[in-house]
Amino acid sequence: MDRFYSMDRFYCPPERIHTPLLRLPPEETHHVMHVLRYRPGDRIEVTDGRGGVYTVRLRNLRGLEIEGEIEEAVYDPDEVGYELTLVVGVIKHPDRQAWLVEKATELGVRRIAWIRTSRTERDQIRLDRLQRIAIAALKQSGRRWLPELLPPRALTDWLQQDKARWRLAAHGPGAPYPPISSLLPRPLPKGATISVLIGPEGGFADQELELLRAHGLALCSLGPYRLRTETAAVAAAAALLWAAAG
Amino acid sequence: MDRFYSMDRFYCPPERIHTPLLRLPPEETHHVMHVLRYRPGDRIEVTDGRGGVYTVRLRNLRGLEIEGEIEEAVYDPDEVGYELTLVVGVIKHPDRQAWLVEKATELGVRRIAWIRTSRTERDQIRLDRLQRIAIAALKQSGRRWLPELLPPRALTDWLQQDKARWRLAAHGPGAPYPPISSLLPRPLPKGATISVLIGPEGGFADQELELLRAHGLALCSLGPYRLRTETAAVAAAAALLWAAAG
Repeated sequence: MDRFYSMDRFYCPPERIHTPLLRLPPEETHHVMHVLRYRPGDRIEVTDGRGGVYTVRLRNLRGLEIEGEIEEAVYDPDEVGYELTLVVGVIKHPDRQAWLVEKATELGVRRIAWIRTSRTERDQIRLDRLQRIAIAALKQSGRRWLPELLPPRALTDWLQQDKARWRLAAHGPGAPYPPISSLLPRPLPKGATISVLIGPEGGFADQELELLRAHGLALCSLGPYRLRTETAAVAAAAALLWAAAG
Repeated sequence: MDRFYSMDRFYCPPERIHTPLLRLPPEETHHVMHVLRYRPGDRIEVTDGRGGVYTVRLRNLRGLEIEGEIEEAVYDPDEVGYELTLVVGVIKHPDRQAWLVEKATELGVRRIAWIRTSRTERDQIRLDRLQRIAIAALKQSGRRWLPELLPPRALTDWLQQDKARWRLAAHGPGAPYPPISSLLPRPLPKGATISVLIGPEGGFADQELELLRAHGLALCSLGPYRLRTETAAVAAAAALLWAAAG
């Protein structure tokens, strides 16, 4: 659906932006200059992944990094109207993990936090690889917000620091929990902060369910099927986009 | 979340079921006998992918196929309460096509129909491979309905045969169409038949948009981002699960 976007969109981390100048990192410089063959003097569109979109005129190539001058800056505080944090057990298969990051980025997720639970089989993730996938999806989808990717931590640690206003945990199927849709206000208030915890492939253990309840999380269901972790996470993100629109 | 399912679930196509006997195909027989090491006399659970679930006692291995006796049969006409057909442009990357089939199966889609449009870059799909992926997802997710996979046909051919009560086409972003959520009744009536057309990676051409309107399809938006075909399709499926539950 590229015809709605006349310009390619590139990514520049905020710390490389010193208005009115910015300097693209080497990977992005390569994409701009060698893959798409822009030249000094051309205009490109850049996002900082924090809501900012800049119209930039390319200047000089300095080593592996191209410098540009910001001609216009637009800031969008919040594209979807809410802030969704997906909290997921580390997924065993790296490709499924990558797919989750790509789709969550496309679907407006603000943050992905990985957790370790008693049934999580892996506890490491390749954050650098996942970050590259998120950046590619950011550019492809036209988003202005790059999801924050938080490295795996223990479930208890996460629960102590989760500050979302609505905190849900999906568990099931077959468990007698209300559907996720019934636990969120409709319409969703502007700026709502929501976290949705998705269990690991083996589900939450009983003592973990107790812990979730003790921390005030609402247990909910994502429908009648046994969903893989990444499917459940993406389904929750898509459902929220829908809820916010309707 | 296996603890909700004490038994493994296997797949047997309806044409191999002659009550009270059935004969599993070679792949499933291999899975039952050699991977999971069941033996004649053991009980397994089998679905026909058409709503039926059978408790089966294994009998004799005949060549590469195990025969079983049906002890109990349960039929569920409709798990999610609606019938969703995803109509998608053929996706260039085979892995993305496979992901779509896996996730659509998990998320309760009843049928996937591929279409050729003026911006579709491929027009062939590996239906046999996709069928195997759908069967694996069926077994893993505990569904009883195997999505029908319909080979690519021209958009005009599809439009002439689409019989769904609600026919939507997602296009955008940036186009001034209402959100998909506003075009379906809420709550969704039991047994609603819905088709959602997702454009190819380059979007629909203008004359195709005219054709969709002429055939009475409602154009809708899936949110503020440029979604990949498979993301849009999976997001629509997840949103419908949500809508049906709430």
